[in-house]
This record gives sequence, C-alpha cells and structure tokens, in this order.
Amino acid sequence: MNLILLRAEELAPTGAGSQRAVLRDRRLQHLREVLRARVGDEVGVGVEGGAIGKATIINLDAQAAELELRLDEPPPPPLDVTLALALPRPPTLRKVLQQATALGVKRFALFRAERVERSYFSSHGLHASALAEDLQLGLEQARDTIVPTVEVHPEHFGRFVRERLPELCEGRAPLVAHPGAATPCPRAPIGPATLIVGPEGGFIPAEVALLKSLAQAIDLGPRILRVETAVVALLARLSP
Amino acid sequence: MNLILLRAEELAPTGAGSQRAVLRDRRLQHLREVLRARVGDEVGVGVEGGAIGKATIINLDAQAAELELRLDEPPPPPLDVTLALALPRPPTLRKVLQQATALGVKRFALFRAERVERSYFSSHGLHASALAEDLQLGLEQARDTIVPTVEVHPEHFGRFVRERLPELCEGRAPLVAHPGAATPCPRAPIGPATLIVGPEGGFIPAEVALLKSLAQAIDLGPRILRVETAVVALLARLSP
Repeated sequence: MNLILLRAEELAPTGAGSQRAVLRDRRLQHLREVLRARVGDEVGVGVEGGAIGKATIINLDAQAAELELRLDEPPPPPLDVTLALALPRPPTLRKVLQQATALGVKRFALFRAERVERSYFSSHGLHASALAEDLQLGLEQARDTIVPTVEVHPEHFGRFVRERLPELCEGRAPLVAHPGAATPCPRAPIGPATLIVGPEGGFIPAEVALLKSLAQAIDLGPRILRVETAVVALLARLSP
Repeated sequence: MNLILLRAEELAPTGAGSQRAVLRDRRLQHLREVLRARVGDEVGVGVEGGAIGKATIINLDAQAAELELRLDEPPPPPLDVTLALALPRPPTLRKVLQQATALGVKRFALFRAERVERSYFSSHGLHASALAEDLQLGLEQARDTIVPTVEVHPEHFGRFVRERLPELCEGRAPLVAHPGAATPCPRAPIGPATLIVGPEGGFIPAEVALLKSLAQAIDLGPRILRVETAVVALLARLSP
C-alpha cells in the first residue's frame, strides 16, 4: 500500500484551511502493523477520484488514526487502454484486476468465450465488494485514485461481439492478442485502444475469425504466456 | 502446461527410428485429468535442454502413459537478459521465477538488500527442488526446454555488488530499475543485458548510489508497481 485511499465523505475541514480524516478500518491496521507508523510520521494519501498528497499522523491509537492532509498533486495519468478480457478463473481474475489497475487501466469488460468455464460467472470474485477490493489494491499500489469500471457480459460470445464490443471499441484502436498473428504488439503508446484478451487456452478458430473482422490481431512472440503475464506484457508495451 | 518436459534419460529408441517415453508421475496425472487425453491424441513435448515437438499417446492407463515422440523443432529463442533480483518474499519469488522463465530468462541471481527480510534466505522456496519446480512450470508454459540457472547470494549487499555483480554484467548492458530515474526503460531488445531489480519498497539511497556507479538507472513511469508486475513489464519491453 503506497497510498491510503480516502473517500471524499471522510474528509473534514479544519479551522486552519487544511483537511483531516479519521481511519478505523484495515487502513488503520495497515498504518499500525505494516508501516509501524507513529504520531508525526508522514504517509501517502489520496482521495477517491481526486488528488493525492501527504498526510501527517496527528493522533494514533488502537481505535483510530487521525490524519492531517495536504492533497496537492494529481494522480498519475491513466493508461487509455480498455481491457476486454475473457473471464479467467477467479485467482487469475484477481491478479489481472490488481495488476492492470496498477498499470492504469480504467475500464474492464469481462466476457464469455468457448473456453471460459460457465461456473466462473457465478464466482465470488465477481461480487461488487470483491471487485472493489481488487481495484482498490491496484490503486493503492500505484498511488492512483481514479477507480476503474468493471462490466460483466455473461451473454453468448457472438452476441457480446456484435452488440457490446463495437461500443467498447468506438473511437479507439481495437487490438486482439492472438499468438501467431503476423503483427507484433506495438511497442509504444498508440492513443486510445481497446485490448481484447482471450481465455487460457486461447480463442477457438470461429471466435478468432469473428474478432479479426473487428480488431487488429497482435502477437507477443513465440512464447505462450499465462493470461496474467500476457496482460502485463501487452500493457507495458502500450504504456507511455 | 503447453509442453510435457522429458529428461533425456527418459527417451528410448524404437526399432522404427523414432523415440518413446513412458510417464508415471504428475505428467501422467496432467494428461489424464487436465488434458483428458486418450490413446491416439497428440500432445506437445520437449526434452530438457533439447528439441520440442509432438507426441502421440500410444498407451494410457492409470499407471503409465506411453508416448511416441517426434522432436523436430528448436525451443523458442532465449531472452538474453540476466535477472539480478533482491530476494522477494516466497510467493513473489515463485511468481517471478515462473513468469520470467516463461518470458525466456536463463539466468537468475538472487541477492540481499537492506529491505530484504533475512528470513527469506532460509525459506523453502530456495530449496533446489522448489526452484526446479518453478522453473519447470515456466518452461512448460512457454514450450521451452532450456532450464535457467538460479544463483543465491546471501552475502552482504556491498560485497555482492563489488564481488559478484561485475561478472553478472560482463559483456552485457547493466540496467537497474529505479522509479524516478531520468531514462525510461528501453522499448526494444538492446542485446545481452543484466537487469537489476530491487526489493518491494525499493533500494535504500546508499544502495542506489552504489548501483548507479555500475549500471544505467531506468524507469517505468510514475506508477509504483509490485516486483512481479515490474519484472514482467521490464522484460516485455526488452523482449524481441
């Protein structure tokens, strides 16, 4: 946790024109047990959707931490890549959400494909609270405050591609990661993009054919990578 | 597992000039339970240190699988980046070894730094069998056969840098990942390189100063990434 993320409603003005916040949850525990912070220490803070900065701990005990805030920097710029991902198994989903959020992705769309097990769509990892936790871990890691959106598309793949993917790609460069594609993944930012990544085991041929009619197929070389590795590798190449 | 990795001593010639192998361990289990393979199916295989290719399953039961091998392709080219990594906590080490091996790294050097907990050097993850398993998982993922080497350097950081790091960097471009460095991480292969990556929380200033006298400091942008994410991002940019 490189940044303690506060919600706007947790901020209270002080007489002196600065702002304070009081923590009582896992962030308090983190301050005490991981950072072993003391009164007077400075820690990184940010407000959901807003600025980042520093906080001075002005009171700290087992029940609460009181912080005085100086929020004077913008969060890091987002990575303007929408990640459309065939829903992976729950532990992989967590890794991808945390890491892609840390890398700056602000929109995720999780879809069904032939090689996606149906049970994944009823996993706990898709509950709003589980998604929120993974996104928050990614933001805290990267000192970011802008919470990504996550859409879940359990409908049939063909319907997703015809009815939802065009909107996800509108005004953006559509890319589909496909091992063996003739075009290598770009090595520099290409402006707004939508990156489509298939399931472990890949898209089936009919899915590849449909996606190739809508998106540029790109390749990462001859090595077959796990989904979580491929996503980080692709985003790292597209990052500024 | 995109490739079943065989040891050279498991290969037996057949009269017809081809080769066979018999599996009885977790690879048999994988064939039966994950791939749900049947007699006549083809699977990807490779020989440690040698060629990759296809195998036809000619016998399969609960005790053994017999494969007929056609090993006629080279493994994917290695990534000529030596990864010198401050020893991370055991779960992170596993992720880094597996992912960096899948990306083609062939030499790892794990070293001590101020922010490395001493207990990590006595963790089970550094036992030869645990290391071998992580490397094998990475190779099986990427359809590779060339087993990387892993060196562990528990000596003091200063001694490691003075006495071992020069050899690790000899004839190679030395790079140290350091958030905030003025030079961005290269976005293309730069030939043989040694990439030095610090612990979660970073190198302390004295360590940075020492490393900067030996290696070019490079940066991945304003987002602070976890070690496993940073390693994949750096290697992805340096990969062909």
